[in-house]
Amino acid sequence: MSATESRYGRLLSDFEVGATYEHPWEVTVDGGTVALFQASFLDATPIYASAVMAKSCGLQDRPLHPLLCLNLGLSFSVHDVSEQAIAHLAYIDVRFPEAGYVGDTVRARSTVLGVKPASSGDKGVVHVRTILENERGAVLCAFERKALIRAGKLAERPAWANASGADTPDVKQFPSVPKALRDGGKGGFGPYANDFAVGQVFTHAIGKTIGESEHMQLTALVRNSHPLHFDEVYCKDNSFTKQRVVYGGLVLSWVATLASRDLCGNALWELGLDAGAHPNGVVGGDTLYAASKVLDVKPHANGSGEVTLRLVGVKNKTSAQAFAEHGEALFADELSKKETKIKEKVVEITRTIYVRKKP
Amino acid sequence: MSATESRYGRLLSDFEVGATYEHPWEVTVDGGTVALFQASFLDATPIYASAVMAKSCGLQDRPLHPLLCLNLGLSFSVHDVSEQAIAHLAYIDVRFPEAGYVGDTVRARSTVLGVKPASSGDKGVVHVRTILENERGAVLCAFERKALIRAGKLAERPAWANASGADTPDVKQFPSVPKALRDGGKGGFGPYANDFAVGQVFTHAIGKTIGESEHMQLTALVRNSHPLHFDEVYCKDNSFTKQRVVYGGLVLSWVATLASRDLCGNALWELGLDAGAHPNGVVGGDTLYAASKVLDVKPHANGSGEVTLRLVGVKNKTSAQAFAEHGEALFADELSKKETKIKEKVVEITRTIYVRKKP
Amino acid sequence: MSATESRYGRLLSDFEVGATYEHPWEVTVDGGTVALFQASFLDATPIYASAVMAKSCGLQDRPLHPLLCLNLGLSFSVHDVSEQAIAHLAYIDVRFPEAGYVGDTVRARSTVLGVKPASSGDKGVVHVRTILENERGAVLCAFERKALIRAGKLAERPAWANASGADTPDVKQFPSVPKALRDGGKGGFGPYANDFAVGQVFTHAIGKTIGESEHMQLTALVRNSHPLHFDEVYCKDNSFTKQRVVYGGLVLSWVATLASRDLCGNALWELGLDAGAHPNGVVGGDTLYAASKVLDVKPHANGSGEVTLRLVGVKNKTSAQAFAEHGEALFADELSKKETKIKEKVVEITRTIYVRKKP
Repeated sequence: MSATESRYGRLLSDFEVGATYEHPWEVTVDGGTVALFQASFLDATPIYASAVMAKSCGLQDRPLHPLLCLNLGLSFSVHDVSEQAIAHLAYIDVRFPEAGYVGDTVRARSTVLGVKPASSGDKGVVHVRTILENERGAVLCAFERKALIRAGKLAERPAWANASGADTPDVKQFPSVPKALRDGGKGGFGPYANDFAVGQVFTHAIGKTIGESEHMQLTALVRNSHPLHFDEVYCKDNSFTKQRVVYGGLVLSWVATLASRDLCGNALWELGLDAGAHPNGVVGGDTLYAASKVLDVKPHANGSGEVTLRLVGVKNKTSAQAFAEHGEALFADELSKKETKIKEKVVEITRTIYVRKKP
Repeated sequence: MSATESRYGRLLSDFEVGATYEHPWEVTVDGGTVALFQASFLDATPIYASAVMAKSCGLQDRPLHPLLCLNLGLSFSVHDVSEQAIAHLAYIDVRFPEAGYVGDTVRARSTVLGVKPASSGDKGVVHVRTILENERGAVLCAFERKALIRAGKLAERPAWANASGADTPDVKQFPSVPKALRDGGKGGFGPYANDFAVGQVFTHAIGKTIGESEHMQLTALVRNSHPLHFDEVYCKDNSFTKQRVVYGGLVLSWVATLASRDLCGNALWELGLDAGAHPNGVVGGDTLYAASKVLDVKPHANGSGEVTLRLVGVKNKTSAQAFAEHGEALFADELSKKETKIKEKVVEITRTIYVRKKP
Repeated sequence: MSATESRYGRLLSDFEVGATYEHPWEVTVDGGTVALFQASFLDATPIYASAVMAKSCGLQDRPLHPLLCLNLGLSFSVHDVSEQAIAHLAYIDVRFPEAGYVGDTVRARSTVLGVKPASSGDKGVVHVRTILENERGAVLCAFERKALIRAGKLAERPAWANASGADTPDVKQFPSVPKALRDGGKGGFGPYANDFAVGQVFTHAIGKTIGESEHMQLTALVRNSHPLHFDEVYCKDNSFTKQRVVYGGLVLSWVATLASRDLCGNALWELGLDAGAHPNGVVGGDTLYAASKVLDVKPHANGSGEVTLRLVGVKNKTSAQAFAEHGEALFADELSKKETKIKEKVVEITRTIYVRKKP
């Protein structure tokens, strides 16, 4: 008798512009999810770690870390969108409209915004919009992303796996800060809004070596089902490195949190991420470092402000060394460069954080 | 002065048929326990992950994953039963009579059902029955198992370690489904009861490479005290592989969850496991794959049904490749075979799941 | 443009006797924190694992494990005290005055008690006192410690990082047992107060191999920011082993918990730790073993008692083998020895536990 072998994700011809996929994962987030996230990312932003701080800022409890929400939303979508993908190409307009909390049960769905076959005919770019909601319909994360997908149709995708849902709203219609959030508390780490200067560069001093088990655990925790990250047999034939590759959403999280002691002690919210990409891959045992450059500071009337930074991650050398070698080119958009690509760059993204004024 | 060196577990002559051992572990299960379990096992069964789904099925909250309960019960018993064991031989009639929840404090006890010395005289088979209860006396897991134990008496087992308890009831007297459970919800993954056909074979597509830290963490989390799993110095002299061996209850859990996206999206309960064994060992770095064969489908009047499958796990090759090589023999009972044993098979077990009808 | 590179910790001339540093970490401890701690340390002390046992002893719930509290307090202080340290030299008078619980939000502060430059002029010893408090001001842990610090001033420490606080009270003014604690329960493991005899030596039989990911996760979980423990690039130039070194607070925790099945089944509280040091370092992959020697037994009128032990950890050989080789010298203070230092000794500390009488 022959065997059934179901496969998930989609090939290029399986995507239809305008279709919305209801991702099947439905997960109640608990304190353990939060702790595991904290156990790999030495994040210094107080509002995500301390219930006392969060309540002083008008929230009911510690909100789920925005990067955890992004990772849940992106990973839930892998089953329907990118489990057959060759590469993740871009993070676009990531927002965190509402605070999520421990106890929330989250689901996600994605709408296909575009499908663009490459001239080579063997692959193409798929553009989707994904939202992550809790059981009360509050949107914890909304974003767009692009992935590189092989041509063809996936014969082994079972019919039951094709649940469709209501269209996802445009990311831009969402607020960028939870309604309840107000200036409060006072973080022990980092600068206030008016301490940031446009053009300022930070080379964050300390790195993080990635453990094999920890990156696989976090990948499963957020339900990312792409075997590239945890299946060595698959990787021998299918990975560009011939080995397991660290899931990019975690690379982004490590790099962002490596910057957090210098930047985020008084950050009250992650207003958004945009124009993000992973120019090179990361494997277990690599050591990540972060650098940030201030692109813009938009003061609010009350003295708080919105600080926009370009965040860059490099591997196996300090960011100070990378900045000494490449100068301002370290912060230039890698994928649009014609020459002298920076081989150690593993992530680049523009982020805007809401930072309180000095009390 | 000489030193006291307490040792735990028992040798063959330390077991007395009819004796019941109260295992000393007493542990409150929290959300972190659940999250760590989820962080290694990409399980797609919605009722164990989502409080919303669980409540729609009549339960008060997400129930503890049955495989977590089995691992807690089996591991708690190691201290008294199998810490000196050479091998775990068989899982017999495993049931999950009641749902456990986060916050439950669990304990276990085991009754000796049989002791059978081998003709060689240097070892024998011990047969025990174990139940795992919460503080309200609800039985979360009940099972029998057999272990291969060296002959002799353990001089170093301290007297205080010999707590005895009330006899454990026969596993067969327990219900196989929690009283409160009812058909509800609708899972995003997998088939309904009437989609299964007797004889159908599934080669589950995706594997999982086992991390060193993650298997040791899970072993400690469930309080398995056998040094074979986490003590490299012990293993140099005492392990058949000369290195740490992954605890079998985890191997079973990995293999079962690798099958879950294909089978368990609409599974509402694990009715039981039986006739289970680990024909070959697994070490950190091995990659596991799963295959399932439908043995029986018992429809209920309401359209739901009981689906019995033979679940097999293999290492370091895909289950599709193993099925191509061995055909139906992949699902034949390994330990009773005279010839052509399948060296890559790491677990085989019969499982019955309760699957809802299509709503 | 030049880059800002903030560095944390302090050099010798940055310390002023009498100054108190408010450490910026503010963290709500959740069930996941507890589970991750349990997932690496197979601790058998029932009061920290079981809510039922803890309530029978007068506490409101499972108290946070004292070693978790010590690790949180010590690690929070790294950012201000020891992130530039060459070595941790001594644990002095560690106490656990109040029980902490899941949900507590904890902070720490440290007072400089002494600064003593070495005659070489390139380094010196800093002596601090640290307390860890919850949001209601209950002191969960208070201790002193000494660290070896390089001479000089740290130019890159940002001004905002210098928060000062109220002086920390003398450790000796705190009670050594939480007020609410009373004799209760009955542990399944280990001896009662009157089973301990002065001079008795325990070589605890089972070891624990340290995983790379698990030690890095625990280090981040408790917010230890010293790159020696998780930054391989830093370690190539700055580690005495040229590789990541396991954080000492974890080494102590592994060794203490390896002793717990033999000693702590009826321990109701950790009354204190003192005269502790790490004579040699530990790296991922090392296997730890523990030995204990009873120094004193102080019976209470009610039959319970205070048992003082010298706890020693060794690496990559069993403690029985270490005791066979070194005899009682295994328990002698390593750092004060002139000769025959024990190269495999990784921790030594004096601990006093409160042990209930036989019911």
